[in-house]
Amino acid sequence: MILLTRKAEFSASHYYWNDAWSEEENRRAFGKCANRNGHGHNYTLEVTVAGEIDPVSGFVVDLKDLKTVLEREVVSVYDHRHLNLEVPEFKSANPTTENIAIAIWKRLDGKIPGAKLHRVRLYELPDLFADYYGEA
Amino acid sequence: MILLTRKAEFSASHYYWNDAWSEEENRRAFGKCANRNGHGHNYTLEVTVAGEIDPVSGFVVDLKDLKTVLEREVVSVYDHRHLNLEVPEFKSANPTTENIAIAIWKRLDGKIPGAKLHRVRLYELPDLFADYYGEA
Amino acid sequence: MILLTRKAEFSASHYYWNDAWSEEENRRAFGKCANRNGHGHNYTLEVTVAGEIDPVSGFVVDLKDLKTVLEREVVSVYDHRHLNLEVPEFKSANPTTENIAIAIWKRLDGKIPGAKLHRVRLYELPDLFADYYGEA
Amino acid sequence: MILLTRKAEFSASHYYWNDAWSEEENRRAFGKCANRNGHGHNYTLEVTVAGEIDPVSGFVVDLKDLKTVLEREVVSVYDHRHLNLEVPEFKSANPTTENIAIAIWKRLDGKIPGAKLHRVRLYELPDLFADYYGEA
Amino acid sequence: MILLTRKAEFSASHYYWNDAWSEEENRRAFGKCANRNGHGHNYTLEVTVAGEIDPVSGFVVDLKDLKTVLEREVVSVYDHRHLNLEVPEFKSANPTTENIAIAIWKRLDGKIPGAKLHRVRLYELPDLFADYYGEA
Amino acid sequence: MILLTRKAEFSASHYYWNDAWSEEENRRAFGKCANRNGHGHNYTLEVTVAGEIDPVSGFVVDLKDLKTVLEREVVSVYDHRHLNLEVPEFKSANPTTENIAIAIWKRLDGKIPGAKLHRVRLYELPDLFADYYGEA
Repeated sequence: MILLTRKAEFSASHYYWNDAWSEEENRRAFGKCANRNGHGHNYTLEVTVAGEIDPVSGFVVDLKDLKTVLEREVVSVYDHRHLNLEVPEFKSANPTTENIAIAIWKRLDGKIPGAKLHRVRLYELPDLFADYYGEA
Repeated sequence: MILLTRKAEFSASHYYWNDAWSEEENRRAFGKCANRNGHGHNYTLEVTVAGEIDPVSGFVVDLKDLKTVLEREVVSVYDHRHLNLEVPEFKSANPTTENIAIAIWKRLDGKIPGAKLHRVRLYELPDLFADYYGEA
Repeated sequence: MILLTRKAEFSASHYYWNDAWSEEENRRAFGKCANRNGHGHNYTLEVTVAGEIDPVSGFVVDLKDLKTVLEREVVSVYDHRHLNLEVPEFKSANPTTENIAIAIWKRLDGKIPGAKLHRVRLYELPDLFADYYGEA
Repeated sequence: MILLTRKAEFSASHYYWNDAWSEEENRRAFGKCANRNGHGHNYTLEVTVAGEIDPVSGFVVDLKDLKTVLEREVVSVYDHRHLNLEVPEFKSANPTTENIAIAIWKRLDGKIPGAKLHRVRLYELPDLFADYYGEA
Repeated sequence: MILLTRKAEFSASHYYWNDAWSEEENRRAFGKCANRNGHGHNYTLEVTVAGEIDPVSGFVVDLKDLKTVLEREVVSVYDHRHLNLEVPEFKSANPTTENIAIAIWKRLDGKIPGAKLHRVRLYELPDLFADYYGEA
Repeated sequence: MILLTRKAEFSASHYYWNDAWSEEENRRAFGKCANRNGHGHNYTLEVTVAGEIDPVSGFVVDLKDLKTVLEREVVSVYDHRHLNLEVPEFKSANPTTENIAIAIWKRLDGKIPGAKLHRVRLYELPDLFADYYGEA
């Protein structure tokens, strides 16, 4: 078994907010991220798949197929979007680095032809990232 | 004379839009950037100052002072903001990489203690940046 | 369970030396690193914590709290210091990449509010780093 | 136990081809990579070793020894070479990122003095890499 | 006037050779680069254009147009190619970093709609690059 | 004319201090950098040379020669050294980013075979660097 990782990027807006809290409580918990006009990031996504190498091609996964899946399932839905306002999974959950990583896992799991999703890593900033390996 | 460059970062939302155009014309000109919910970036700013080295300290500019100016004049105004909605200079001009670089020049010019502003470089993405050297 | 990683940086001096050896033996074992005037590095630290996501905030760990712990336990002790001369754990052990990673683990373990320390990665150079996961 | 990772780099040419297929079938499967004049990459290799720290030196592995092994077993064989034409293991298998990672594992396994090979990571591009941990 | 820079990437093979010299003279002058099987690199290209900002769009140059020109004039010709064997300008001149930068200038000069080509920077490796500003 | 840039790296210790000032005055001016045990950095040096391309080789400068000069004049003198204690030019001047850049210029100027030194860029941190172009 071997692992193959492909990066992709998307730029999106988000904010953090809890409707059950007052403006002041939101500010205390989320600081500048509670600004409801939103702010944004260049997100970098690393998708790792696991599988056996096809002896003819030498590939674990066809890179064109992998790119097509990432584009269709994630990039076309998240890129140049306001995550809170336009992406269904963040209507009720804050689009934190952690929650976005899990949401991407759910979007990709079972959709990689011939390989198994192993890890989703999402960078919100060059010095902050989340890793999700699915349910144990 | 020597040049010294300091980087800073801010995360912000923006969109591109021309009120004189229809939705369709805006889409044609600005593509995904015309989404008025906004999207965002991690902007990286490089500010270059020029000056003579103080023979006692060995500095062109006191780095604490430079950091204070960058924080006060730029980062505190742009970071975690929606540039179109919250920053005055982008009420009437699109916050493109080029226009943000010029706006940062105007905010910083003449405010660096003991040195001259030489260049503002602004990265919107790792592979897209603008350089502004002021009026010739 | 999900993993969250935060980077931090510190700049420090060090050298490698074994008191039981002659100058020549130290030179042979440690090369240029045996220079007792010291030399230095920009160290990059990646701290990974593991935990469950708080359903209200969407966070594994409050990033302000994590930053406070890293600053108090590691950065304030190591940054702009000579590791051999000023940091107790390196009075008797060489401050190699490996030993510093373990020392940082010991400083952080049990101190992250609401999450478990999972991994300490320490870069001494962009092309040399150590990973420590604690005692098995 | 602790892990230590060292990076190395080599520049090489390659192409993807299956002799049992027609030119057209190769083009369909491998796209631009089927150009038999070859194209090339700056490959970045990360070799991770696992072991116990020597209490005297503070090292898992002597970095000079590790560098010597990487140079002799991998870099001197792959660097500035055409992988299909000049490296035996790619006479019959495509030099994909996955296959090169496994070939490097086989070249290094059992040759690191005093430590165990833990992982080979190979970047073909900054946004594409393979990880191999050996046979389970 | 303001400068805007866009990066692009291509992967290609090359070698260095002078037909007027013996094998041994070529080896002495070009070292490992004289291997006529070729070796390769991930080249990173930075194209800088200069111009006035369009007050309506806020752009110096339409980024879609710029991308189209870079793709048509450079990337489609160089990417996944053997530069010596497949690109006309390197039939008689070595594809060194310097010569490739000048060749890219000649391919792009006068073709950027509404802006002036200012600089071509070409990285052959992360630590080696050439800059060309055209004829004085 | 074309410019060619080569990077090199060295790791060194330094501190900032003015003998004419008290401990307290030094602390006030230089902060943590006034710690006389020293601290250190991974410095990254970019040396840019200017010249005409040799039509036979395609080079502005022979890269082996350039590397030899950088190694002999700079890296062998600065790497794994304490700049204040072991490098003559910093006995009396603080080894600030600015002063080191100028010192490297003086060490290299006139010593590049067949090309002219154009710029010395020195990074002390990834987000702080100085550029020196010599005396106007």
